[in-house]
Amino acid sequence: MTGIAFKDGDWLETGQTGWALADRGVLLGDGLFETLHVIRGKVVRLDRHMARLTRSAAELGLPGPRDGDSIAELVAELVARNALKDAIVRLTLTAGPGLRGLERPEELVPSLTLTAAPRLAPPASIRLALSEVRRSPASLAARHKTLSYMDNIQARRQARGQGADMALLLDTRGNVSGCDCANVFWLIGGEVYTPATACGVLAGTVRAEIVDSMPVETGAFGLDVLEGAEAVFVTNAAFGAVPVTELDGRPLGSGELPARIRALFA
Amino acid sequence: MTGIAFKDGDWLETGQTGWALADRGVLLGDGLFETLHVIRGKVVRLDRHMARLTRSAAELGLPGPRDGDSIAELVAELVARNALKDAIVRLTLTAGPGLRGLERPEELVPSLTLTAAPRLAPPASIRLALSEVRRSPASLAARHKTLSYMDNIQARRQARGQGADMALLLDTRGNVSGCDCANVFWLIGGEVYTPATACGVLAGTVRAEIVDSMPVETGAFGLDVLEGAEAVFVTNAAFGAVPVTELDGRPLGSGELPARIRALFA
Repeated sequence: MTGIAFKDGDWLETGQTGWALADRGVLLGDGLFETLHVIRGKVVRLDRHMARLTRSAAELGLPGPRDGDSIAELVAELVARNALKDAIVRLTLTAGPGLRGLERPEELVPSLTLTAAPRLAPPASIRLALSEVRRSPASLAARHKTLSYMDNIQARRQARGQGADMALLLDTRGNVSGCDCANVFWLIGGEVYTPATACGVLAGTVRAEIVDSMPVETGAFGLDVLEGAEAVFVTNAAFGAVPVTELDGRPLGSGELPARIRALFA
Repeated sequence: MTGIAFKDGDWLETGQTGWALADRGVLLGDGLFETLHVIRGKVVRLDRHMARLTRSAAELGLPGPRDGDSIAELVAELVARNALKDAIVRLTLTAGPGLRGLERPEELVPSLTLTAAPRLAPPASIRLALSEVRRSPASLAARHKTLSYMDNIQARRQARGQGADMALLLDTRGNVSGCDCANVFWLIGGEVYTPATACGVLAGTVRAEIVDSMPVETGAFGLDVLEGAEAVFVTNAAFGAVPVTELDGRPLGSGELPARIRALFA
């Protein structure tokens, strides 16, 4: 992240301390985040980010965030203050300060923070390693973009230790779920496939865009489908769609994005 | 928590901000914690807490904490500064500041924080509600006391909404795992049982004390065992052992702690 951050109405240096000692975000991972791709000061797919954040906040019992217009204004100011045009902005919404223990205080005072980082060029391709971490479809932390991200951190660590770029995770029934910070898609017989959300999937904004833009088969699929696929690719808000060339060191598909996917990000 | 906290060498008012904006503890739940029961300034079962923290830090790739003697000194000073004798002290170890994304910086600067709260009398008994959240045995967040605690928060929320005190969670195979902030034990035919750690169990310090003090059968057990048990009880560092009287509104066992368990906490 770069020099200036927004936190609860103030503009702070990112080197400063900003979180209350008693913030449940740090004590218990009690909060949500969004990773926003900003082009020339404007958030790409802001509506989808706000819809997801609002839905997750409701399901997890957190107060809803500000409306999208207000977030758009803050992001524009944040990016300008950091002398950036294209950027990745992280939005963090925590439950705010709490007492000891699991239970939230009766009146929540949630905290909203935005930080900015320069946008890096997306990788040309990605090598995956299968993780030992498996996602429980009956875990809220698996399905929502919460601050409780330890399983993804560890999956990534293991994947990097194996010389891959990113981890592929199965759910606890052995079905393909997704990657540590991305959704996964593949093509077989010209059809586009992706795991159903019931497979412990964190439903990304780019995943939603693809599913709404073209016919996509969603369901529960074992790992073997990837080995027979014509192409495999992963998606997230920061890099769009990127082809996967390897799984555990073995080549996969053609390593090229299908034209109709490329068209979405042209 | 009360007025004075220790953070990375400083003594702060707990109302102050203390966490760096870029601390991975808040951004991604990247850290560990311990809940220490302090009697007259001394931590109960400190060795077990330090052993668990050290083991988890190693497995999760975090730098180990200070040694136990140093923690004991800090706790004694913390409790004295807060004019407490008996207390619950929370130790929080985060990965410290990081850049954007899942991967940790090459050099971690971890953060250690201690806060104190008065010790409350343990509840006389506890009513459980079965949670919809299920723990993946292949989740590191389930097995370690990490800052990624959203699933436990949500399980507790649901249980309280159902009029119970605490949630009971199964693993993804349907075996009993444990409670949102406690381990679970039961007696059948005079034998003591508890789920094996392979059932997505976060192995508590009191659980370890009991397993090391008497014969305990550990294994994978379905929910039905609780309904036939003579007694059910839950354990954690803050309250020791407390009998369970109900599961989903139905009475369980006798609602009394067996004598040999009571003797451990006498």
